[in-house]
Formats: sequence, C-alpha cells, structure tokens
Amino acid sequence: MPEYQVCLEREVKRFADLSSDETSDLWITAKEVGARLEQYHKASSITFAIQDGPQAGQTVPHVHIHVIPRRTGDFEKNDEIYDAIDMKERELKEKLDLDIERKDRTMEEMAHEANEYRALFS
Amino acid sequence: MPEYQVCLEREVKRFADLSSDETSDLWITAKEVGARLEQYHKASSITFAIQDGPQAGQTVPHVHIHVIPRRTGDFEKNDEIYDAIDMKERELKEKLDLDIERKDRTMEEMAHEANEYRALFS
Repeated sequence: MPEYQVCLEREVKRFADLSSDETSDLWITAKEVGARLEQYHKASSITFAIQDGPQAGQTVPHVHIHVIPRRTGDFEKNDEIYDAIDMKERELKEKLDLDIERKDRTMEEMAHEANEYRALFS
Repeated sequence: MPEYQVCLEREVKRFADLSSDETSDLWITAKEVGARLEQYHKASSITFAIQDGPQAGQTVPHVHIHVIPRRTGDFEKNDEIYDAIDMKERELKEKLDLDIERKDRTMEEMAHEANEYRALFS
C-alpha cells in the first residue's frame, strides 16, 4: 500500500509554528485526501501521523502528515506500518538531498500517476 | 514519558465523519496541548497519530489523537513509540469496558494530577 504525505506550501519546521488557519487547512485537506485514498485503494482504515521534530523521527524539517490507507493483513504486525513511515521519511530526505544521485522515474510513469490522482481529486 | 489523548466530546467513529469545524477544533487543540506538554516534560519533539479505523490499530471507536512528547533516547528504536501507542489503546479499551475489573487510582492521586494539568492549561 503506498504512503502519502500532505504538507503546506509554506516551509514550517514544527507543527506549533502553524497558524490556526494553516492547521485547519492542512488537516481538513488530509481528512479529504485520506477518505479518497481509502476508497481508491479499497482500504478500510487510515493511519495519520506527524513526526513533529527530530526526536519523533522527522528527517525533513517541513511539517508533513503521513497518510497511509490500511487494510486487514497489510502488515504482519500493526506496528510495522511505522517502520514503513520511517523508511519513507528517509527516502523523502534523499529525494530532497541533491548531493545524492537517484534514478528518476520516466516522464511516462509520472504522467500516468499524475492522471490517476487528477481523476481521483477532481 | 506519558501518553495523552485528545478527543471531541461528540462520539464519532471515523476521522472523515468530523465536520470541518470539528476537525479544526480538534487539531488546533492538539497543537496547543502538544506544545505545552512538550515544555512541561522538557521534551524536544512530539509524535501525533490517529489510528483511524480498526485496521489501523483503533480499538476504541471514538476518534482520538495520540499526543506523545518525545526526547532523545526515550525509546531505543524510534518505532517502539508505536508499540507504546498500541498498548495505551488497549488500556483505554479496558478502562471503558465496565466488565473488566480495574484498580482505580486514589482520589488524592487524581486530584494531584488534575491540579498539575489545570495549572499547565490555564
């Protein structure tokens, strides 16, 4: 099951630094995104998490919500979901770290995915 | 490090069932509660999580946010925090299950704790 991140455009390090309006926008969006992704992936639950600060596992200093559609048996133990979040967090850091070489997906692959999500959220 | 839950008074099963106003209230409150608890516990990060639905580890069908102040070395591996959340989730269920006998804390202990938090949030 893929993992998604929802974030604000404005780069803010800690959740407490968000204004009330930003907090509302962020979470109302995550709620809507979660509901559609749950349906899209034929899932039945969702894990929402913010690793707010480095001691909570945050590697990218830009507040983001992890949104993961969940279904029965997707992980052998429920907690393995959080290993997956940590792995995703490291990948995200690598993607943003221009010193590390990475293999981009093809334009075709990315266009295909963008079309799928465009349909889902339009 | 203690774990806290923030919830709405209205009993709502899934996060998607909350209105926009409820979503805002819940998260603006959790943000504020988190910031104060972080300071109170001399922590430096916070884990926020919603186990939204049974397949995400939810045992009590009433939307609640887990708020856990975090500091360096509080868990040997970062992911152990989520074992702790799951344990807390089971405890919560037991507390609400009137068929299970449990040992209440004394009035004195509860009054002491209530006073501490009253000072923190006033």
